[in-house]
Amino acid sequence: MMIRIAIDAMGGDQAPDEIIKGAYLAQSSDWGYSLVGAKDQISDLLKKYRFDISPVSVIETDEVIGSDEVPIQSLRRKKKASLPVAVRLVQQGDADAVLTAGNTGAFMAAAVLFLKTIPGIHRPALSPALPTVCKGKMVVLLDVGANMDAESSHLQQYGVMGSLYAQKVLGIVKPKVSLLNVGSESGKGSKVVQEAFELLEKSEIHFVGNIEARDLFSGIADVVVCDGFVGNALLKSGEGLAEAVFSMMKQEFTTGLREKLGVALLRPALRKVRNRLDYTEYGGAPLLGVNGICIKTHGSSDAVAISNGIRIAGTLVRERLLEDIQEQMKMLGGRIHD
Amino acid sequence: MMIRIAIDAMGGDQAPDEIIKGAYLAQSSDWGYSLVGAKDQISDLLKKYRFDISPVSVIETDEVIGSDEVPIQSLRRKKKASLPVAVRLVQQGDADAVLTAGNTGAFMAAAVLFLKTIPGIHRPALSPALPTVCKGKMVVLLDVGANMDAESSHLQQYGVMGSLYAQKVLGIVKPKVSLLNVGSESGKGSKVVQEAFELLEKSEIHFVGNIEARDLFSGIADVVVCDGFVGNALLKSGEGLAEAVFSMMKQEFTTGLREKLGVALLRPALRKVRNRLDYTEYGGAPLLGVNGICIKTHGSSDAVAISNGIRIAGTLVRERLLEDIQEQMKMLGGRIHD
Repeated sequence: MMIRIAIDAMGGDQAPDEIIKGAYLAQSSDWGYSLVGAKDQISDLLKKYRFDISPVSVIETDEVIGSDEVPIQSLRRKKKASLPVAVRLVQQGDADAVLTAGNTGAFMAAAVLFLKTIPGIHRPALSPALPTVCKGKMVVLLDVGANMDAESSHLQQYGVMGSLYAQKVLGIVKPKVSLLNVGSESGKGSKVVQEAFELLEKSEIHFVGNIEARDLFSGIADVVVCDGFVGNALLKSGEGLAEAVFSMMKQEFTTGLREKLGVALLRPALRKVRNRLDYTEYGGAPLLGVNGICIKTHGSSDAVAISNGIRIAGTLVRERLLEDIQEQMKMLGGRIHD
Repeated sequence: MMIRIAIDAMGGDQAPDEIIKGAYLAQSSDWGYSLVGAKDQISDLLKKYRFDISPVSVIETDEVIGSDEVPIQSLRRKKKASLPVAVRLVQQGDADAVLTAGNTGAFMAAAVLFLKTIPGIHRPALSPALPTVCKGKMVVLLDVGANMDAESSHLQQYGVMGSLYAQKVLGIVKPKVSLLNVGSESGKGSKVVQEAFELLEKSEIHFVGNIEARDLFSGIADVVVCDGFVGNALLKSGEGLAEAVFSMMKQEFTTGLREKLGVALLRPALRKVRNRLDYTEYGGAPLLGVNGICIKTHGSSDAVAISNGIRIAGTLVRERLLEDIQEQMKMLGGRIHD
């Protein structure tokens, strides 16, 4: 059976061009697309990239929700914008997954509103996979901002969902799940985190205890669980600090002839480091816990990032992530703290 | 009047050698030292560095609290350890400030236990100044781990204390105070943070609104207020990410002859970047809000970091930080949310 992926063709800084180009790059006999947005623009781009038209349908909308719009308000005012229309395709059973590079808050709100959460799941979690110092090894961090007031039971569910996600997308049989904390010993941290530690210990996952933020990028954990406020701060400070390091290098590397020559020699290697640190390369975060495969890619996503996001969406549908989360929730039903 | 600074000579990875050397580097006619620790070792080091003995007294103790010991337990079991004895010198009026590179948790607990908080202050805050991309410009981040369950009123007080601290140590007349949040608009974030926004707006400080973690190192704010759990995570992930960047560079820079030559040319410049990112260089964080000047330096502090910490301690005593916080708390008494 062919998987159908709904794509918000108008979301993100580089829409619709890079979005359609990304869809082109990710073309596969496994899936087809429902592209939502301005029909003329999309048709031109389909022609430009010489798309195989058969598995592609275009759903015309002329409204777009901007990245800076207030999520709930914009959803109310723009019911026919490309983002909510794309999400509703999943609700209506016309698509198996949805992807956007658009307004994160509006996407999360639309996903919860139209698709609801999986029975038993209290709150969804935005769950990017981030680079580590171990080449090729990623770490899934969740939640990075779907839920600002996480309770301990939410953190427990993040552990369960993150573990399933790492199995399916990173291909790790028994992912090591850690709880972000201020120290590695048990008994550390806020009340919520202390409670979450005990709940995670009782869960049917490979929980390996607390992890300090300094080890987030070390590659020792496959999944790191934290509150959405903390995760969002970590994700953004990581972006900011990576930029800061490169900005400091620029300042120090342009002082003299010696430095200029050194930089010229190292330029390709520096670019590799920069690319490894660039989260936007990594193709999007799923919103785990809603009853549909929802992938959010970075607002500045280019075609490569979009194509990575599409492949993740396809993998999660094929690997039946939703069904497995549902199954886990049923099994753990009695044991999940409410 | 001479300022007297109590120093835990045995705390930290490089104690007592680098501690005593740091005290030597920071020697000043403005202050004298009370060095707490193993008398023989300290005396030998004083001789080694040819200390001017007159403003130095040595308080003998033979117990030390290790960095990995459980704070409260260790304080109970080792009442005569160098760390609590140094803090008690301030309590007894025998010192004006205390500095340690030892166990952070034990230091915070001893400070609250022996010195109490300033009347009106609900919770103290550990408050390091961190480097930014603007050369020479620092940002004060508080709290980074003294209080794991911050309420909105605590965050408000952090803003007031952080502003006074930035005035005195960074020399900024009207420090820009920001609230760490997941977005720059008001109405964002957790309930506690949303409440804190309103309280900070009403405070007699230059509150400039929310700041996202990506701008933490950009230099646009002088003081950034956050929950101790978040601040701790940011501080440690910053350390971790800086290390990760250098580790990735090492991987990419040693691939070929070209890269090796480039690195050789850039080595001095790379070292400068590394030093700018090295928090341990920046000489310690005050525990703001306790009734005594308490400076915690990084566990791996060398003599330069210790000497910077001592200078900060001296500055805060001379500039009467405690009296100013007391004054502010009295003035704001009615208006600070309890």
